Amino acid sequence: MALKSSNLLKQLFRPHHLLKYGQTPIERFASGIPIVFHRKASSSDKLVDVAVDDKTGIATVTLQRPPVNSLNLELLEQFISALQAVEDNKSSGMILTSASPTVFSAGLDIMEMYKPKPDRVKKFWTTLQDMWLKLYSSPYPTVAAINGHSPAGGCLLALSCEYRIMVGPKYSIGLNETQLGIVAPRWFQDSMKNVIPIRQAELALTTGRMFSTEEALKIGLVDALAKDKADALSQAANFLLQMKKIPRVARGLTKQACRQDAIGWLEKNRDLDLQIFLTFVNQPAVQKGLELYLESLKKKQ
Amino acid sequence: MALKSSNLLKQLFRPHHLLKYGQTPIERFASGIPIVFHRKASSSDKLVDVAVDDKTGIATVTLQRPPVNSLNLELLEQFISALQAVEDNKSSGMILTSASPTVFSAGLDIMEMYKPKPDRVKKFWTTLQDMWLKLYSSPYPTVAAINGHSPAGGCLLALSCEYRIMVGPKYSIGLNETQLGIVAPRWFQDSMKNVIPIRQAELALTTGRMFSTEEALKIGLVDALAKDKADALSQAANFLLQMKKIPRVARGLTKQACRQDAIGWLEKNRDLDLQIFLTFVNQPAVQKGLELYLESLKKKQ
Amino acid sequence: MALKSSNLLKQLFRPHHLLKYGQTPIERFASGIPIVFHRKASSSDKLVDVAVDDKTGIATVTLQRPPVNSLNLELLEQFISALQAVEDNKSSGMILTSASPTVFSAGLDIMEMYKPKPDRVKKFWTTLQDMWLKLYSSPYPTVAAINGHSPAGGCLLALSCEYRIMVGPKYSIGLNETQLGIVAPRWFQDSMKNVIPIRQAELALTTGRMFSTEEALKIGLVDALAKDKADALSQAANFLLQMKKIPRVARGLTKQACRQDAIGWLEKNRDLDLQIFLTFVNQPAVQKGLELYLESLKKKQ
Repeated sequence: MALKSSNLLKQLFRPHHLLKYGQTPIERFASGIPIVFHRKASSSDKLVDVAVDDKTGIATVTLQRPPVNSLNLELLEQFISALQAVEDNKSSGMILTSASPTVFSAGLDIMEMYKPKPDRVKKFWTTLQDMWLKLYSSPYPTVAAINGHSPAGGCLLALSCEYRIMVGPKYSIGLNETQLGIVAPRWFQDSMKNVIPIRQAELALTTGRMFSTEEALKIGLVDALAKDKADALSQAANFLLQMKKIPRVARGLTKQACRQDAIGWLEKNRDLDLQIFLTFVNQPAVQKGLELYLESLKKKQ
Repeated sequence: MALKSSNLLKQLFRPHHLLKYGQTPIERFASGIPIVFHRKASSSDKLVDVAVDDKTGIATVTLQRPPVNSLNLELLEQFISALQAVEDNKSSGMILTSASPTVFSAGLDIMEMYKPKPDRVKKFWTTLQDMWLKLYSSPYPTVAAINGHSPAGGCLLALSCEYRIMVGPKYSIGLNETQLGIVAPRWFQDSMKNVIPIRQAELALTTGRMFSTEEALKIGLVDALAKDKADALSQAANFLLQMKKIPRVARGLTKQACRQDAIGWLEKNRDLDLQIFLTFVNQPAVQKGLELYLESLKKKQ
Repeated sequence: MALKSSNLLKQLFRPHHLLKYGQTPIERFASGIPIVFHRKASSSDKLVDVAVDDKTGIATVTLQRPPVNSLNLELLEQFISALQAVEDNKSSGMILTSASPTVFSAGLDIMEMYKPKPDRVKKFWTTLQDMWLKLYSSPYPTVAAINGHSPAGGCLLALSCEYRIMVGPKYSIGLNETQLGIVAPRWFQDSMKNVIPIRQAELALTTGRMFSTEEALKIGLVDALAKDKADALSQAANFLLQMKKIPRVARGLTKQACRQDAIGWLEKNRDLDLQIFLTFVNQPAVQKGLELYLESLKKKQ
């Protein structure tokens, strides 16, 4: 058990709550990364596009929920379906990318957390868990073509793939949850610790550090840089074509074994993880922070 | 538990089995690393030589099963006995090396896996487990003088020592099991993750990458290069003489504590690990692959 | 369970005990790092000083037990109280440093281990466990300004902080327990493995390596070098001021989650860990080594 929920609750309800530093965490976040208020998606919107190249058999999965691919329930559900579809057909691997010109994914949709309805927010979090378990443990080869900013949940998506190519030099990537006054769950942290050195992971996670593309390459958070999206997609395809040469069953089982400790933790602690999230999101201080942020966005519009 | 055997079985029996890429995995492997068909060793053969230097007290353990030190039951049994002997006498440490001019060890003997008799193959795998548990957890100082190619089980032997010196620049080393269509067991993977960064281990394991000596040095898979076997043995002796200065009991217990998580996993999961191997080796697709490979070798002869 | 105590006992009582190398481990140690015999502290001595900067809110905690800040029961108790005090007040983080001009801390006080009284030595070890659990898991930001040699328990203190700045180039740091014929407990080892690569940790721990400041920086054992104590304190304050910008609760919970595996191990195995220590310290060979060392010190005086 990574966190004792009783300790967590005690700490969360201490008087020095999230808003003590003059600026709300989310306002601070907003000054760095573009997050904007947007309409609620209807369930009929196509938020994820799948295109399979007939020649190479490579499937390109594109997140297309304007403006910044915030991860809401519907996007997560459609992404899970897309993953299942590419696994089921004959394609040789998946490239994950974004339809936005500047953002890969801005992370979890804060509208899923503001004044949450109990059933919806519970479904949202368990679907996020489902998505990660599926993506992280998929025997299918996966690569992220990161063509824009990739904070928090966006970084998690990239970390869960097997290889990361990032368009440089303008964008940034990282698990910046602490900057927002929130805590990256254990499985977010494990996803990072399986990519960069554990010492660097602790520093990055506690400070909520966003890395420039050059910094991300140097520390190993991404594997290669690209000059633009086309270059990123081309490098991603090359990676998958290399993977295609490896016997498929053995490759998939080996990948799962490599990632088993992280996967096993969430499988065993899904309910604990959900309770921690629900406790957190229902705090008055957290709700107040979200409200102030949303009001500030309305004024801008 | 690293792998759920039920999931494993489901995946292994899917139609996209090991032989889907036109060439059998073992044929592909054979084109890179010399593996040749050879006579069955009788139990009276001396497959492991032990020589103790009277002056330094250093024991040199030489694998000598022509042509490529394939690890069969008898070699494993003799190696375990040799390890016990050098631990029991007054020697100051063990150098593990090969009598072959070009191969350290080619890994597991495929004849132990082709048309396996139930008792023999079970004994083979449990003896492999015994060997690793003994070598990996030995309080005795160990160093590998890698004087030739070292794929798969050969790489495991080297990784299980405390220090690795490799003769360059012609040879290669790695856990290349996926290239053969097989899966490196959890304890093979742990042995690698305790030596190179976890991110590099995942990439190397999923692709079955063989490293050149220079690459192996750069990534940390080996600690030093040597220009020939004599140089490797000399550097190995220097390492052991440094270790001799450290109080013996404390050194041994500290080494065991460092490696305890990997050791503990296999100790707790020996039977699961055996069942996974037996399930795998008894599949028709695996047996067919081995048969085709052995026939191709006979034709060459 | 990291070590089976039955195996441990068997090994410890083998004839090749700690003193086999001509020189006692502690004599060998003494030739490198200054450890001197000193008076027993009374419980009224102030062994730990706490000073809070009114402007920055930073608390500087100074170990001041002459001559070398050996960690005895009273020092550990006072340090725990100091940690609690700085957590409870409004301070923005802790700098841990030493009043000695040449030694950060020489590690555990050997007088706690020589002819130990059962109640005292048991209390000593459980207090050491308490100290580490509190320091390592504190949600409070911590940084070590290492202004002198830092062997064994001194290195543990530094490793338990979140950031390490070391005054160079004269001093050395490391978990050198094997050099003394003793074994760094599992939680000492985990503290190192969370800072430097696991491969380097095994080599350093088995050989009891002391690193120069330059070596420590290169391997990541410390994060930055300083030219003197004032420079170290200034850099430490800068680190804490950066941490002050991060929302406090989220930062603290994230730090705890990062360190949870190591913390969880000791929480679950406190009694096993205590029994291993008590078994070790009560051995005749260990007591004899301590006696010879103390006699040699008396002669010098």
